[in-house]
Parts: sequence; C-alpha cells; structure tokens
Amino acid sequence: MDSGWQWISFTTDYGLGDPFVGVCHGVMARIAPHARVLDLTHGVLRGDVANGALLLADCLPDLPAGVHLAVVDPGVGTDRRAIAVATADGQVLVGPDNGLLIPAAERLGGISGAWELTASEYHRQPVSRTFHGRDIFSPVAAHVAAGTPPEALGPSLEPAALVQLKTPGPLTAAGQVAGEVVVVDSFGNVALSLQGTDLHAAGLHTGDRVAVRFDDVHAEATVATAFGDVDESALVVLVDSFGRVALAINRGDAARRLGLRSGTQVTVSRRPG
Amino acid sequence: MDSGWQWISFTTDYGLGDPFVGVCHGVMARIAPHARVLDLTHGVLRGDVANGALLLADCLPDLPAGVHLAVVDPGVGTDRRAIAVATADGQVLVGPDNGLLIPAAERLGGISGAWELTASEYHRQPVSRTFHGRDIFSPVAAHVAAGTPPEALGPSLEPAALVQLKTPGPLTAAGQVAGEVVVVDSFGNVALSLQGTDLHAAGLHTGDRVAVRFDDVHAEATVATAFGDVDESALVVLVDSFGRVALAINRGDAARRLGLRSGTQVTVSRRPG
Amino acid sequence: MDSGWQWISFTTDYGLGDPFVGVCHGVMARIAPHARVLDLTHGVLRGDVANGALLLADCLPDLPAGVHLAVVDPGVGTDRRAIAVATADGQVLVGPDNGLLIPAAERLGGISGAWELTASEYHRQPVSRTFHGRDIFSPVAAHVAAGTPPEALGPSLEPAALVQLKTPGPLTAAGQVAGEVVVVDSFGNVALSLQGTDLHAAGLHTGDRVAVRFDDVHAEATVATAFGDVDESALVVLVDSFGRVALAINRGDAARRLGLRSGTQVTVSRRPG
Repeated sequence: MDSGWQWISFTTDYGLGDPFVGVCHGVMARIAPHARVLDLTHGVLRGDVANGALLLADCLPDLPAGVHLAVVDPGVGTDRRAIAVATADGQVLVGPDNGLLIPAAERLGGISGAWELTASEYHRQPVSRTFHGRDIFSPVAAHVAAGTPPEALGPSLEPAALVQLKTPGPLTAAGQVAGEVVVVDSFGNVALSLQGTDLHAAGLHTGDRVAVRFDDVHAEATVATAFGDVDESALVVLVDSFGRVALAINRGDAARRLGLRSGTQVTVSRRPG
Repeated sequence: MDSGWQWISFTTDYGLGDPFVGVCHGVMARIAPHARVLDLTHGVLRGDVANGALLLADCLPDLPAGVHLAVVDPGVGTDRRAIAVATADGQVLVGPDNGLLIPAAERLGGISGAWELTASEYHRQPVSRTFHGRDIFSPVAAHVAAGTPPEALGPSLEPAALVQLKTPGPLTAAGQVAGEVVVVDSFGNVALSLQGTDLHAAGLHTGDRVAVRFDDVHAEATVATAFGDVDESALVVLVDSFGRVALAINRGDAARRLGLRSGTQVTVSRRPG
Repeated sequence: MDSGWQWISFTTDYGLGDPFVGVCHGVMARIAPHARVLDLTHGVLRGDVANGALLLADCLPDLPAGVHLAVVDPGVGTDRRAIAVATADGQVLVGPDNGLLIPAAERLGGISGAWELTASEYHRQPVSRTFHGRDIFSPVAAHVAAGTPPEALGPSLEPAALVQLKTPGPLTAAGQVAGEVVVVDSFGNVALSLQGTDLHAAGLHTGDRVAVRFDDVHAEATVATAFGDVDESALVVLVDSFGRVALAINRGDAARRLGLRSGTQVTVSRRPG
C-alpha cells in the first residue's frame, strides 16, 4: 500500500459489556481489512469528554503513527459536527467536534487541517441518530486508513473554529499547588491537573511532608517518587508515569480512602516542620 | 490461501475477568496462525442464549465474512450437540445446538447445511466436560478458517432438526404495541422485541406522547428519533441503531430508573391528548 | 523474519478500565509492528502474584510459541529485579522477578537461561518508577519478538537465584484431600491447590458423596465429572478443565454461596454412607 495507514487506534467510553466496540471493529475490517486496530481503552468515563481528551493526549504519543478514532460523544444525534483532524506529521484523528481530539492533536505536533464529515459515501448506511461510532466515525477512520485523503471527507474547517475544552490551569504559590482531579484510575490513584514541573516550581521536592486539602478534608502526605518509598497505606504525592502530580497510597486505594472524584479541587502545601 | 477464511468472529458470555477468552485465542492461533480473530463481545448475559442469539443476529451482518464462533452454553457437559452451520454465502457458524446460532444464520441468508461436531481430530485433547469453548468450538472454528470443509467435522444434520429458540412476537393494535425487553445495554437503554416497523404499523410516530406500562408501573414518554430531541432526563421511545423499539433517557439510565430487566413485558400506547 | 517471534502473549492485573493495557500495546507496536499480541487476560487479581503464576502455568501451553509478557508487580519501584527467562524450547518470558514466571517456565520445559533487564537501550525513556509495564517490560518483550537475543538485555542470572513462590502442597489421606483455594473464576467456580490425580490417589471417585469443610462451614457434595451430572444448585467436586480439583454448583455460584475466597484451606472427605 503506498498511501493510507496500517494502524487505527480506537478509544471510546462504550465499555466492553455490549457489542458496540466489536461491531465497530467489524465495520472497519470490512472497509480496511489490511488495517490493524489497537484498542487504547474503552473505559473512558461515560460521556466525560475531558477525561477522554486527557487520556488521548497522554497516550497517543506512545502509539504507532496512523489514524486515531475516538468516540466520547454525549451530543450524538444533536447538531454537533463530526470531524477529522490532521496533524503536522500527517496522522489523522477522527471523532466528534466537542474538544475530545484537540489536546492529543496538539501533542502530535499541532493541527494542520480539519474537515467536517459530511460525505455520506464514506458512512455506513443508514446512519442512525444514536450510534455514530458505527455509522460515521468507524467507516471514516477505515476509509482514511485505506487511503482516502481527508480532503474527500467533507468541507474544510478552520482549526480555530473547532470546539475547545476549558482546561483548568494550575494554581501555584511558594510551597503550594492547587489543581483539579482529572483522572482516577482503577488502582485508585488520583491525578491532578498539574504537571510535575508545577510541583517543582512551587518548591516542593521529594521527601517534603505536605498537607492535602479539599472540601473539608485534611490529610498528611509525603512527596515521593514511587509508591514503595513510604510505608504501606501511607499517602504519597508523586509525579505519575504520565508526568502529572498524583495522590496515591502504597498498595492501597487513595480515591476510595479520601473520597476523591473527578473534578474535585485539591490543594497540596508544605507542612510546617 | 485458496480456501478457508481470514476472519473469525468470537462471541461469548465468558466476560474478560478470567483467561477463558485468551486461552481460546491461543488455541485458534496455534491451528490457524494466519486467521484474525475479531472479538464481537464477551459480555453476553451469563447463560442467556436468547440474548446472545439477538446480539449475533444484530451484529454479524456488519462483520467481515468468515467463520463465526459463538459460545453461550449453559448445557455444556450434557448431551446437547455441538454444531457447525453453513449459510447460503458459505460463511460458517460454530457453537452449541441450543438456538444461539439460528437467528444470525437467517440474517446471513439462511442455513444451507449443518453438521454435528463429532470428528475428534479437530478437537483439542483431552476434551474436558466443562470447557468446550477451548476444547471443541475454538479448534473447530480455527480448522474451518484454515480450510477444513464443514463436511469433515461430523455427520450432516437436517437444519429443521436444530434446536430453535422461542421468540416472542409483537402485539400490535391501533395506537398500541406490546413486547418484551430483550436487551438492556450498559447505558441503560432498553430494547424491546419490536421492530421500528411495528411502531409505525400501530400508527405511532415521532412527536407522539405515549404511555409506557409494565407490571404496575406507568410512565409518560415521547416518541423521538434521538436522545437529544427531548429534555435531559425525559423518557423517550425511539427506534435504536439496530432497528428495534427502545426506551431511553437523554443522558440517563432508563433501565435503572424504571426498574426494567430482560424479559419484562412492556406496553407502549398513545396518550389521549 | 529469520529470528524473533510472531507472537507475544500479554497477561496483567491492570484490568481494562484504564489505558494501561492499550498504551503497552502501542509501545510494542512501535518496536515490533510485525508482532501479534494475544491478550491472555488482564484480570489477574490485583497484586496477586500467585494467582497470575497459576493462570500463566495453566494457559501458556495452549498459546502459540513466542514471547510471553506478564506483569503482576506489586513491588514496582522497589529494588525487585526485572527479568527475562528463556525456556528449553527457546520461548522467552518477560516480567518481574517475584515468582510470577517460574511455574509457567517449568510447564514449558524448564528454564534454560535468565537475564536481568538492565540494558536501557531496550527500555522506553524516561523510565517511570510506577509503570514498568510500559517502560521496561513491553519494550523488552517487543525487542525480543523483533529478534534481539535475550543475552543482550542485561547480565545473566542463575536460575536458582530467581525469586520463587511458596506453593502449598496437597495433603492427602485415605478418603480425604486438603488444599487451598487458588482460583475463583467469575462463574464462582473454586479451584483448589490439588490435581485430579490427588483426588484419585485418596480413593475418591465419581459418584462418591463427600463432605466439604473449611473454617466452621460444612457442606455436602458429590464427586462428578460435569456440572450437569447433578441437580441444579447442588454442590459438586470435580476435576476442572485445567486438571485441578474444583468446587462448583450446577448453574450457580459456589464461591458466593459458600463464602469461599482465595487462600482458604478446604478439606474434602468421604462421607460415611
């Protein structure tokens, strides 16, 4: 094949309890039988576009170059647009125009073009109003993998006109950082909207004892570099494997113990010592 | 390869918490390393043959032609037969003879032949009495994908002699339809044993206000074409992406809110207005 | 390809709710795009090395020969070693040095060599302290699949110096066997640390009525060869599809009904009759 792509990554909030993911695989296999579909995850929080956007931005740089299909689409059936976005190095992201794709596209070098998916010859017919993953996004991703240029998918859009997510900025002061819970993983580790560099900019370093505060909760923790640096069941603040500031408990579930969930505002500050 | 198939679809009620699905993949990969196995879902309701049969019939037309392996097999270890079924276009379905495969075979053009899986040279040895997915169905599917003709798998069966599921027919009157809950997906959307055409035959159309009744529950809903057509948290009756009449709540969980589960008999009727 | 392997099996306790498994697939696909990754399961009990070791030993013989990547790694970030282990027939297992890989390597013919994974050119950079699955184990497995000889991965280790799990031995007397619960599957079937041969050595045979005892529980059961040999909801003792003595209930959940969990010591003895 001298155009198109071998790999399609696939990310949704569909879960694996229904045949939704499998039938999308089927639609793609019929259109692009040579392509290999890599499931990044189907465990994005239901309808949580910001959660999906973050996971994509975190993970796509570790995936093979190709087409990236992502569907977290609470607005399916409304007038939200369906889009394809090309990045500087020619990779193509396909999904709804709700902000889901933008942070990942920026991580992959920035947006070089965007198109609205209106060319119905690249859609599965009939197009339902409730399952665009199967009827629009999967077939379009497969057609791009098979060599269809994104220009054929529909009219060009201005990148600046795409829907953007509001992302909370870090709040940093000497000895203190504040951010929002953005990911709770299934181990109960809690990532904040803060990069490791924010922690260091605030003068917080490995071994510092800190206070973790949110709502009316106040907990003591230690800045560390790995779970195993502290006693079992002790709370640590660390830079996680995706470069974010995270709260974790050695062999325990920090989210459950502290009662933390997506969106909570958390402050980490040096304890007088 | 001049015979056999590239694709094997794979559907079970095993879930993904155990290595059952993975070890079946292993058995197939050893026999037919060229084949590509597409997991449709392993989330069929445990032991619910009707649920599996419906998902297969809904989804197989969107999958690449090939071999379709399906195991929902509460009778494993009893004298229920293991079978392969060929369809008019030469595709082959492999699974237990409990009705699971029949509706899908009919969707794929009808049954052109059926065989009982008794030829032990195509089974993994020893054959356990509790895991025919690994020991009979997976190796047989892989051998067919590798070019073994179904005639070699065992004696021919009359299609009419295969076990059939009883399927509830729709009850339709002017302004009213009644059916059974057949699928509850993980979004909480509830599909009934009714096609969109049944709804229209009863004279119910988009925008109609209807009453939804079951057991001693009575709820008000609107006939719509997408979740987003109504206010958030309002109940809608719509034709879902598989063509069935379904109950749903815009950004909500209809099954949980109404307390609906598989098998419940539901009536939808026009409200005096 | 004249060296390396086509297949990489992949087993973890990561679950599928996060992108951890998917990003490891991505890392492997970038290094060894020709390789095919077979997910055995990502449902090993969290941090339960013995559970993972048992599943690997049970299942790897049914998988295609190749590289076997396994990560159940509660000691990530401590000084536990990362290792590759070669088996007599040249297959390679990659994972932490905590006992996880040893029983499977013995099932595959025994250990012919072992190496510590210190050669950083085969790791993803930077190596985090919390996600060696992505940063060390996946890239190493992919490099081996792409033809890197295990000798290049780091210094050779004495097989005898590898960490071993303590495994409970069977306790057998005339008419009685005792063992520990080692696997509870999602059907609620309960496997003990006893082989079918232990049952027969104790003189227990199909049709025998037995008492099952643990803690202060005492239940009656029948030795059978399949769930369907007894009435629905009756308890059976049988040899499961992996050759182990197991407790099961025909169309029921034995673990839940009896309150059995991993690690419980269970005695099965012939009832006077």
